[in-house]
Amino acid sequence: MTLKLGVIGAGAIGKEHIRRCTQVLQGARVVAVSDINVDSVRAAIALAGINAESYSDAYELIQSGDVDAVLVTSWDPTHEEYVLAAIAAGKPVFCEKPLAVTAEGCRRIVDAEMKAGRRLVQVGFMRPYDEGYQALKKVIDSGEIGAPLMLHCAHRNPEVGENYTTDMAITNTLIHELDVLRWLLNDDYRSVQVRFPRSTSATHARLKDPQIVMLETEKGTLIDVEIFVNCGYGYDIQCQVVGESGIASLPEPSSVQLRSAAKLSTSILTDWKDRFIKAYDTELQHFINDVKAGQLHGPSAWDGFAASVAADACLKAQETGETVTITTAERPTFYQR
Amino acid sequence: MTLKLGVIGAGAIGKEHIRRCTQVLQGARVVAVSDINVDSVRAAIALAGINAESYSDAYELIQSGDVDAVLVTSWDPTHEEYVLAAIAAGKPVFCEKPLAVTAEGCRRIVDAEMKAGRRLVQVGFMRPYDEGYQALKKVIDSGEIGAPLMLHCAHRNPEVGENYTTDMAITNTLIHELDVLRWLLNDDYRSVQVRFPRSTSATHARLKDPQIVMLETEKGTLIDVEIFVNCGYGYDIQCQVVGESGIASLPEPSSVQLRSAAKLSTSILTDWKDRFIKAYDTELQHFINDVKAGQLHGPSAWDGFAASVAADACLKAQETGETVTITTAERPTFYQR
Amino acid sequence: MTLKLGVIGAGAIGKEHIRRCTQVLQGARVVAVSDINVDSVRAAIALAGINAESYSDAYELIQSGDVDAVLVTSWDPTHEEYVLAAIAAGKPVFCEKPLAVTAEGCRRIVDAEMKAGRRLVQVGFMRPYDEGYQALKKVIDSGEIGAPLMLHCAHRNPEVGENYTTDMAITNTLIHELDVLRWLLNDDYRSVQVRFPRSTSATHARLKDPQIVMLETEKGTLIDVEIFVNCGYGYDIQCQVVGESGIASLPEPSSVQLRSAAKLSTSILTDWKDRFIKAYDTELQHFINDVKAGQLHGPSAWDGFAASVAADACLKAQETGETVTITTAERPTFYQR
Amino acid sequence: MTLKLGVIGAGAIGKEHIRRCTQVLQGARVVAVSDINVDSVRAAIALAGINAESYSDAYELIQSGDVDAVLVTSWDPTHEEYVLAAIAAGKPVFCEKPLAVTAEGCRRIVDAEMKAGRRLVQVGFMRPYDEGYQALKKVIDSGEIGAPLMLHCAHRNPEVGENYTTDMAITNTLIHELDVLRWLLNDDYRSVQVRFPRSTSATHARLKDPQIVMLETEKGTLIDVEIFVNCGYGYDIQCQVVGESGIASLPEPSSVQLRSAAKLSTSILTDWKDRFIKAYDTELQHFINDVKAGQLHGPSAWDGFAASVAADACLKAQETGETVTITTAERPTFYQR
Repeated sequence: MTLKLGVIGAGAIGKEHIRRCTQVLQGARVVAVSDINVDSVRAAIALAGINAESYSDAYELIQSGDVDAVLVTSWDPTHEEYVLAAIAAGKPVFCEKPLAVTAEGCRRIVDAEMKAGRRLVQVGFMRPYDEGYQALKKVIDSGEIGAPLMLHCAHRNPEVGENYTTDMAITNTLIHELDVLRWLLNDDYRSVQVRFPRSTSATHARLKDPQIVMLETEKGTLIDVEIFVNCGYGYDIQCQVVGESGIASLPEPSSVQLRSAAKLSTSILTDWKDRFIKAYDTELQHFINDVKAGQLHGPSAWDGFAASVAADACLKAQETGETVTITTAERPTFYQR
Repeated sequence: MTLKLGVIGAGAIGKEHIRRCTQVLQGARVVAVSDINVDSVRAAIALAGINAESYSDAYELIQSGDVDAVLVTSWDPTHEEYVLAAIAAGKPVFCEKPLAVTAEGCRRIVDAEMKAGRRLVQVGFMRPYDEGYQALKKVIDSGEIGAPLMLHCAHRNPEVGENYTTDMAITNTLIHELDVLRWLLNDDYRSVQVRFPRSTSATHARLKDPQIVMLETEKGTLIDVEIFVNCGYGYDIQCQVVGESGIASLPEPSSVQLRSAAKLSTSILTDWKDRFIKAYDTELQHFINDVKAGQLHGPSAWDGFAASVAADACLKAQETGETVTITTAERPTFYQR
Repeated sequence: MTLKLGVIGAGAIGKEHIRRCTQVLQGARVVAVSDINVDSVRAAIALAGINAESYSDAYELIQSGDVDAVLVTSWDPTHEEYVLAAIAAGKPVFCEKPLAVTAEGCRRIVDAEMKAGRRLVQVGFMRPYDEGYQALKKVIDSGEIGAPLMLHCAHRNPEVGENYTTDMAITNTLIHELDVLRWLLNDDYRSVQVRFPRSTSATHARLKDPQIVMLETEKGTLIDVEIFVNCGYGYDIQCQVVGESGIASLPEPSSVQLRSAAKLSTSILTDWKDRFIKAYDTELQHFINDVKAGQLHGPSAWDGFAASVAADACLKAQETGETVTITTAERPTFYQR
Repeated sequence: MTLKLGVIGAGAIGKEHIRRCTQVLQGARVVAVSDINVDSVRAAIALAGINAESYSDAYELIQSGDVDAVLVTSWDPTHEEYVLAAIAAGKPVFCEKPLAVTAEGCRRIVDAEMKAGRRLVQVGFMRPYDEGYQALKKVIDSGEIGAPLMLHCAHRNPEVGENYTTDMAITNTLIHELDVLRWLLNDDYRSVQVRFPRSTSATHARLKDPQIVMLETEKGTLIDVEIFVNCGYGYDIQCQVVGESGIASLPEPSSVQLRSAAKLSTSILTDWKDRFIKAYDTELQHFINDVKAGQLHGPSAWDGFAASVAADACLKAQETGETVTITTAERPTFYQR
């Protein structure tokens, strides 16, 4: 009954998923690993201390009779082809974000999956599995604060490197909000506008930081997201939902409260890896459980496509300063929530 | 040494100021009260239990040798003429907001005061006297959070009546933020945009509620203010300043913390009169002290003018949906902070 | 209608009260000051910039026809005689704590006041005038948390000098809790026990610090008070009331909330003078108002007596390690709340 | 490499552990279940949907060659004999609390384990595995607040049934603090005193509720624990450590923050099962991992013994009202932390 997994990509994320499946999660084990660099495969297998087959060709791994399901953690531009191959082989596939590097690529996956006739793809958007967002969604869905009218969000990193540019605030950072807020609100985006305050002196020439993204949803909810990736003080994710009769906020991560040196304080995390560490475990455990139960429920290829379409519009809004319409094709019945 | 005050307007606010001067504040007493309705004057004097002269003509009160300084609490459209008369009489005048019902009117007062050669006017903007805003300004001015880049604000009322319309969200509600944020940031506004989310079902046809006002300052700070006057849950004023290296938030009003009925809670006020009750006392005490010391420091005629100009731009932004430029004339040396 | 005050004692507290009456409070002025050191009197009068009569003899001040009411801020051992003299002269008197240096002395004042037939004495216990304690009492009295069963309190100072000894934790520090908790609970003490944990390395040989005082009330409420006068981190007053159905805690002083340097923090005060600064104003304003209205309501001679009796029992409990019974005489009808 | 577990006791806790091992934890599976009631065994196996051997005799299960390690979840009085049998069989055993129903029984297990020459027993004290307590211990051990001088703790349940009596506040409730605080402070108890405030009207004749237990440790730390099992408002566990230079508090469980109905609130749990749900998972996962790694690190037989000795003293303190000395035998080298 143990699910046999094949992992494509033996880099940092691949190793992390192998460790997770081997030491943390329940009900699966990694039986095959592939990478264009065979030494990396051997190193990853040795590191995890597992018995697994080495592959230099991902397609062979996908087609191996010993592999029940596939994890794609390879270089971004290769995601699309491996996911399509897994669909063709009729095998469930968990693909790290992005599902594909273009909206068209995501759409091709959507089309292939619909043609296959059943859900085979889960995208690695982990925030819907975070306990905080789940608790927040539960409050919204309960009707306790009425219909959501506005969201005030923030995505703050203490700092980023020199290679991080203005557009990456969308594709690497906001992409998480683009996914999780659709899920949280059970809604889609209609338009986006981006505004730039004065930049922090901590940034560089190719990065305008911070920026404020204003998204409007189909239902008319207005979302402002502050993206501030050189905020200095910590890794801080905020989400406040203003409903018709009350306001609900994403829980702060749990922390010891200190009275010390004339301050009453709790800690703010500084490393993003700590913030959603459990959500990474949970998303993959759910994939394993859902595959075994015969029905995927996690972020779908459609969700990957919708996030990609929204991200493209955000980039255009950054460039033009205009309010850009987001035209997501109508959600097929196949992907109804 | 007691400052002798004349109060113009014996309505609710006038009575409140008479009570304040008589029972709460130090160093002044009300010696004269005027109103077009003489019965109101008599009632106000009797209510306060004071010895004060009655006037039906505000100009007589202003010119009375027994009156050292004037409080204007009459009907809004009369403010300008009474303030101008006080300036002409060389008497310090505290005028409830608005200083005048048009920006041009405010400008006339500014010109008259400059011509008089010394500050004689204080406008009744009380928020700069609120201890919370003062603590917030102290943090900003200390440099502890670096230069302010963004402000996230909210002005929420539990409910408003049928007569409250969309434009009043600017002229009656946002007007307080328009004043206090200029003071807080020591900055002026450059542009404004207004966005409307879906309206709450608790509003009516002539009021779009909530709305989000985005102000940009001369220094490039981007301010978003949520105005939500039918939020249901309370009277709630929020102001969060995002600086280059940290974030400072306006203190929540002090409250007993309760563990009860599966909730850990503090109270949120529901009546706006409770929120800034001390600031109303403080602004007038400062006026009294400053008059006696010979130099006014509170919100000036120029501040009244600048708020009026900004409000006019906000109204235009509401109507047009466009980003509207705010052109405040250059601050005269006379009004340097 | 202005109340004319005579101040006995021109030391630090005397000067502070003169400043308060002159610059902050409403409805009174200081017309006479006495001190055994006449230079101090002159300096105090000059500092305040007031016109007031100088006295070297406090009894002359008390009897002066120009003095309506008396403030006693002199050396502790002289309080009793001056208060008795004021009672004899039929003049209201506000006496800084302690009312007298022995319980017997307090009792003599109680007897004299009852004989005089009306309340003339207010003791300078300011905590019942603190807005936080008032809000807490309001919650208790509302029945919202049911009958109080336990109180968990703390009285922490950042540090004390070498002259502060174990017994002063009762007479100088706990004395405030001894007063305010009787008022808060509308109850009296039945017994007390003192326990000493290991001492902090920050203390010295003659001061066991911290200590825990456990008081039981007549109604059976069990109160633990942690006294920790070298806690290092701040001046921190805690009071948590555990009722039958909920728990209410004294509000934390209002503070800007900061997100900075990986901490979410508010400030803790470090100077006791800041903590109850408004309560000092309020207690004296109430004395002034109550004298003018003809009926005192503040902490009475009986309250001073009861606190003194309780403090004596606490000292005995410190020495013996035993649970010591607190026998307060029955409250006379004269002092019913 | 999967650890094969035998579960003794197919009641509620047994079923819960079977579910946990089967669906949540990693690296083990339940291969055998025993109960004096064979129908219960079959039902438990069917419920979990596992292939496991049924036993009516626990000793047979313990000796089965197919069982690597044992979980004891049977009726309390049987714990001792099954644990001793597992030790005799050289098999690691996880025993739900209490390890034995008397301190002598615990001591017999200690002696048997020492004789066996290696740690084979883990007691089901889960709090040291709670993330909150772990974070708190990390702060203490870092020296950030200096040496602990006092602890203020509370253990509150919303309500208990008619069968819950005064002594059970020690044996069923305080027992968790008795274990976790020794671990938290790396210290042992020296004495205990119990004080009873007035009881809540929500209790019954055989239960004095609340009560305050004051424990003193070998190092002189003074601990007060409020036990209040009919507090009405929620299941609330508090632990505040007062150190020489600062104070650290157990984190509150994470919760959505709400602004609603004039309250700013977070939720308090009401069901104890929710509070430590992850700690239950973690303690057993650690047992599994530690068994596979060949060295147990969790709560030991000695910890079970020490908690039992302390509980006996608490019961005596309840009865006598006196301060009762706690004499724990010296910790054998075998059990050094």
